[in-house]
Amino acid sequence: MRTTVGIIGAGPAGLLLARLLHNAGIDAVVLESHDRAYVERRQRAGILEQGTVDVLRAAGAGRRMDREGLRHDGIELRFDRRRHRIDFPGLTGGRSVMVYAQTEVCKDLIALQLEEGGPLLFEAEALAVEDADTDAPRVRFRHQGREDVLECSYVAGCDGFWGVSRRAVPAGLTRVFERTYPFGWLGILADVAPSHDELVYARHDRGFALLSMRSPSVSRLYLQVPDGTDAAAWGDEEIWDELERRFETADDWRLERGPITQKSVTPMRSFVHEPMRHGRLFLAGDAAHIVPPTGAKGLNLAVGDVVTFARALVHLEQTGSPELLDSYSETCLRRVWQAERFSYDMTTLLHRLPGATPFEDRLQLARLERIAGSRAAETDLAEAYTGFPLDRG
Amino acid sequence: MRTTVGIIGAGPAGLLLARLLHNAGIDAVVLESHDRAYVERRQRAGILEQGTVDVLRAAGAGRRMDREGLRHDGIELRFDRRRHRIDFPGLTGGRSVMVYAQTEVCKDLIALQLEEGGPLLFEAEALAVEDADTDAPRVRFRHQGREDVLECSYVAGCDGFWGVSRRAVPAGLTRVFERTYPFGWLGILADVAPSHDELVYARHDRGFALLSMRSPSVSRLYLQVPDGTDAAAWGDEEIWDELERRFETADDWRLERGPITQKSVTPMRSFVHEPMRHGRLFLAGDAAHIVPPTGAKGLNLAVGDVVTFARALVHLEQTGSPELLDSYSETCLRRVWQAERFSYDMTTLLHRLPGATPFEDRLQLARLERIAGSRAAETDLAEAYTGFPLDRG
Repeated sequence: MRTTVGIIGAGPAGLLLARLLHNAGIDAVVLESHDRAYVERRQRAGILEQGTVDVLRAAGAGRRMDREGLRHDGIELRFDRRRHRIDFPGLTGGRSVMVYAQTEVCKDLIALQLEEGGPLLFEAEALAVEDADTDAPRVRFRHQGREDVLECSYVAGCDGFWGVSRRAVPAGLTRVFERTYPFGWLGILADVAPSHDELVYARHDRGFALLSMRSPSVSRLYLQVPDGTDAAAWGDEEIWDELERRFETADDWRLERGPITQKSVTPMRSFVHEPMRHGRLFLAGDAAHIVPPTGAKGLNLAVGDVVTFARALVHLEQTGSPELLDSYSETCLRRVWQAERFSYDMTTLLHRLPGATPFEDRLQLARLERIAGSRAAETDLAEAYTGFPLDRG
Repeated sequence: MRTTVGIIGAGPAGLLLARLLHNAGIDAVVLESHDRAYVERRQRAGILEQGTVDVLRAAGAGRRMDREGLRHDGIELRFDRRRHRIDFPGLTGGRSVMVYAQTEVCKDLIALQLEEGGPLLFEAEALAVEDADTDAPRVRFRHQGREDVLECSYVAGCDGFWGVSRRAVPAGLTRVFERTYPFGWLGILADVAPSHDELVYARHDRGFALLSMRSPSVSRLYLQVPDGTDAAAWGDEEIWDELERRFETADDWRLERGPITQKSVTPMRSFVHEPMRHGRLFLAGDAAHIVPPTGAKGLNLAVGDVVTFARALVHLEQTGSPELLDSYSETCLRRVWQAERFSYDMTTLLHRLPGATPFEDRLQLARLERIAGSRAAETDLAEAYTGFPLDRG
């Protein structure tokens, strides 16, 4: 097989890239190791930045999102039994975010790809990227029991943190930056209307909690739990009791309970792989960087990467200049490090850190007081939450 | 001896409090353990917030400051060989700071006190505060070889971190919050015009450096050094060489050298003692809290404390209501914790932290990039640097 851009991975990065290239008349093949049902079932992030929403619309992939997505104009910070709302449009000159699950974004992009786009092969497991530093990189993969080779002009490594793409960059040329956290999120889906119409980020002495939603009738809730927690060890009522404690307020706000339909634990990690490019291999999304979910940045970073890559390829076609391809890694990393910073700050602002000293606990509260008391500090948060511009860091 | 307010310590907190009380017609006695020459020689902070400047002027202690102090409208952040200026008035609606050494503030206040104020006893060492939780607290002290007792209606503990006042609060009623840092500042005074007309805060791979000044012909410079460093172990040329490296820029900026007239190492500490009041004993300044000097907040916090205390006493006299005295600790601590937060953030933003991971190093640069790239983040810094309002946290 031969194509211009070999895309490894049909997560949001790979699928959106395929769509952007299709729209630009550049042919591509997508290889995805799992089957379609698996990809369409994976529960991931659910907050789309303003820039991501704009990109999906412009790519012709925003119809169902605009119908079913929930536009959110703010979030609530909860601490010390107080409630403080961050007003996104008021602080950022009109920006907001969209609550629309990554799973749904993927479903929409898969349908479009199968209908209008180039080849999208499920159960096609990439085995290795070869000759990345030549003009003729290749992806070896296994599909329907046999090995095959995809010959490309460019390879886009969109295969996530555990994928093979990153391994094609020689160790001597890479730097890895990493931080793990001694806690994770126990997440549930529940068939009950969300108890608040915007996301609630709660800092509590017992640990962090997040109230989110998938739709007007489905709640998504999270509890900070110690690293290595088994989701099955938590009974349903125990989860609701703990959520209720952590969301406590001084007023008469109430958490509504409902049947829990899914339970799982997400680990937390910060990770950056530099550079994001090696020869004609371009890493995008989780293949190159991971953020803890507190800042809701993972999906949006992936979108930023593939927009940057698609633009650079179009620029090369139109002008003959590889300058944007050459600066791909640098351009993406500026944005990536800002998202890493913000995700780290939101995480350490809101989670109970094991071993934190009383001084550090008080600093955490002082930071929250500062955000609640200063328009500048609030604006800083609102700008980062609604998203850094797609063309720069 | 008997007085209304017994003030322990003739640092800026005690001296300014004596001045404020004198202006309000409330009598006070100041006890200082050292002699006058010592107090007037101690090198300490040198940045007065806008609010501190306003208070000194209103107290009639601003004449020489207004003549000799240097108004500064910004600071420079230096990192990655880049220079970024923070424009205080432009970001805060007109606020600035004043470079005028704490030593000079003390000299001015001592002169005023001896000329117009109540008793100020040098070499009068406070030994203990007794009966703080009764209506008749007492300060036992030693003066000119004999022990004496100062009977008061109120005691103001302005005797710094090592003073006796804090010990009068029963351990069972207090909470202490503390953080030490594995580095200190090697500070020099040099007879050379400052190489930049505003303070320069440099983050460098070799460690933090600060360029400051005492006057148009005297520079004050600091180097981050490991905890326990002996100032004498650093040769003069070695200090200048190291400063030159840490202040490096991409342009042709040059550091001018001159004779070093003083050298010393300052340790770094964050410390808060809660509550700041016990009965009729009111702690103020370093007796209750310490900040690392990076945020230039120590002196300004002390001013905030004594202004709050003086106002509360006047309020009691005028209305008979003790409500402001009763909320003294809470009022001060709001402001204190914001200063602790800011001082901690400035310290960790700019110092090389031993044991920092590559991820944490990059976060530091990402934070500096954020400040240099976002008006909101810059404003947050400028507001905190020029000072939190004196009437709230």
